[in-house]
Amino acid sequence: MGKSRMEAFSDGVIAIIITIMVLELKVPHEATLEALLPLWPLFFAYVLSFVYVGIYWNNHHHLLQLAQKVDGRALWANLHLLFWLSLVPFMTNWLGEQHMAALPMALYGVVLLMSAIAYDLLVRSLVRLHGPQSALAHAIGRDTKGWVSIVLYAVGVPLSLWQPLVGAAFYVGLALVWIRPDPRVERM
Amino acid sequence: MGKSRMEAFSDGVIAIIITIMVLELKVPHEATLEALLPLWPLFFAYVLSFVYVGIYWNNHHHLLQLAQKVDGRALWANLHLLFWLSLVPFMTNWLGEQHMAALPMALYGVVLLMSAIAYDLLVRSLVRLHGPQSALAHAIGRDTKGWVSIVLYAVGVPLSLWQPLVGAAFYVGLALVWIRPDPRVERM
Amino acid sequence: MGKSRMEAFSDGVIAIIITIMVLELKVPHEATLEALLPLWPLFFAYVLSFVYVGIYWNNHHHLLQLAQKVDGRALWANLHLLFWLSLVPFMTNWLGEQHMAALPMALYGVVLLMSAIAYDLLVRSLVRLHGPQSALAHAIGRDTKGWVSIVLYAVGVPLSLWQPLVGAAFYVGLALVWIRPDPRVERM
Amino acid sequence: MGKSRMEAFSDGVIAIIITIMVLELKVPHEATLEALLPLWPLFFAYVLSFVYVGIYWNNHHHLLQLAQKVDGRALWANLHLLFWLSLVPFMTNWLGEQHMAALPMALYGVVLLMSAIAYDLLVRSLVRLHGPQSALAHAIGRDTKGWVSIVLYAVGVPLSLWQPLVGAAFYVGLALVWIRPDPRVERM
Repeated sequence: MGKSRMEAFSDGVIAIIITIMVLELKVPHEATLEALLPLWPLFFAYVLSFVYVGIYWNNHHHLLQLAQKVDGRALWANLHLLFWLSLVPFMTNWLGEQHMAALPMALYGVVLLMSAIAYDLLVRSLVRLHGPQSALAHAIGRDTKGWVSIVLYAVGVPLSLWQPLVGAAFYVGLALVWIRPDPRVERM
Repeated sequence: MGKSRMEAFSDGVIAIIITIMVLELKVPHEATLEALLPLWPLFFAYVLSFVYVGIYWNNHHHLLQLAQKVDGRALWANLHLLFWLSLVPFMTNWLGEQHMAALPMALYGVVLLMSAIAYDLLVRSLVRLHGPQSALAHAIGRDTKGWVSIVLYAVGVPLSLWQPLVGAAFYVGLALVWIRPDPRVERM
Repeated sequence: MGKSRMEAFSDGVIAIIITIMVLELKVPHEATLEALLPLWPLFFAYVLSFVYVGIYWNNHHHLLQLAQKVDGRALWANLHLLFWLSLVPFMTNWLGEQHMAALPMALYGVVLLMSAIAYDLLVRSLVRLHGPQSALAHAIGRDTKGWVSIVLYAVGVPLSLWQPLVGAAFYVGLALVWIRPDPRVERM
Repeated sequence: MGKSRMEAFSDGVIAIIITIMVLELKVPHEATLEALLPLWPLFFAYVLSFVYVGIYWNNHHHLLQLAQKVDGRALWANLHLLFWLSLVPFMTNWLGEQHMAALPMALYGVVLLMSAIAYDLLVRSLVRLHGPQSALAHAIGRDTKGWVSIVLYAVGVPLSLWQPLVGAAFYVGLALVWIRPDPRVERM
């Protein structure tokens, strides 16, 4: 089964996710800096989420370049990933409106954690389909970076409940680590 | 007439439908679990609709892979399917906001029923175009699963008016049956 | 200059236009038929606009199939068409919320009229680019149907101000005429 | 690394940006011209932003036609451009709702300025990837028009704070200059 429509559909969904978040940036009702400045937590959350969704799109792009084909299992693993990413706008909005409060920060981390797990499941479904000797399997290797990230998100969630800004530091730090496209894939 | 733009347009519309539903998940006005928990019926409806739209995308993908060409009739059959799917976000929202009440549950079922009928009409328009000896016609066969589903949706609608949760059980059960991509198509 | 990205971009914009209209169907605040029924004018407007946008997508699809290339002029003619189509959701919503009142019905017709003129300009820009001896120019011919439609929309607008339902009949009638893909193109 | 998915993703995001702006055109609550006319500043802002996003899409289209490949740096330069463009709907809405007040007009100019800088960075990342002897580098040349525009946006921002309509004249003037596709690229 060809991969092109799965790429096209994922491009569409991710493009919409990354763009509709801006609809939640409600415009101030006055034309003053005083009215604009209270938006900064929402704007910060918007930038962070834009970067995260951009990272997922980049990695998805790289991953699918290595894949030759997809099957029903991979289609559902992909939809599962898109499901968790689709919750990012909701969490971004809640986090921003509640000025980085503890619970929204923790649940934002849960969505990042579940997205990372879903991405890992997608990788596994593709490795399984292409076989352990495939170029894809060799490029992915042991995926230490992926696993360490999942652990760090899992640590960031309870930390957010204790000190939301510590959780935010975890999420920002992990975003910075992932902005660079995966060198394993670049090497290919 | 080539099928690629019909695929691209359908991918776009279905990607938007599956993603804009999340815009209806209005964020709570407090950063507490007590404020978040009342969202659960809407979240449940969101998950169910996400799965249903995902199923339609998967099946549409499989179906179009078997098709070689489209004509004006198939383009309108496809738009007719997209029309019913476009009502899913509205019904999801109403169902969730009314906490799974009887009438929204029944009309949610009507939209599922009409989508199933529209999908069947799309299949027929493609079989008619490709002829009864085509690979497409052989792969589709007698489509028992499609017809049984249409009957079960039609049964689920009045049941929803009587006991909404019984209707919900019908819709969830049919979703589980359809999550597996159609083996007739996989076999090809 | 290749036409594929212009097709892809147009597919994206038209897919979004046809789908976001449903966001304006605000769900009723009760789970009763009494609460749902007042939505019927908006639902009627939604169906009509869905059909119109579907017609434009179909005709755009057919037209671009005949085109071999595009230039800067055609790109702007295309954006001009997309601009008028992008106003359809706004007009649909106003028309539905104002229960088919005279002024929204007339301005809905203005948007249809301007879209038809914009489509005609796009056709002309492509004919000019491909030359009068091209298959495209022969397929388009004298475009009587396009011109008669423009005249009828122009008649429908003042009629709407006088009797909105007469205007609605004009728009519905023209939609029915255009649902059939253009035989000139089908013949190719 | 192929450029096709970067094109497809950009098409998706830009298509959504250009279309969701219309969601902010809130319909009047009466069916009268008196209720419609106060929308004119928002409508003017909508038209201006539609033209600007259209210009970026056109230029992006032309630029990517000259590119043979992309790398991780170009993907992020592209996402950076899309980020600034994604703020256009927010600024459009604020500008329109505040009836062209000084601060929104200035910040609208900031978003145009940052988009122009981001586009320049994208051009540089592609020139760097293709090398100074590439057709792309020759087509771009010294990019005087790009640099003059950046300077003029930077001048327009403080002017907007002083006299918003002077700023608006700058932005409209620059849009008119850019509507013509870049002759350097057309020449190729």
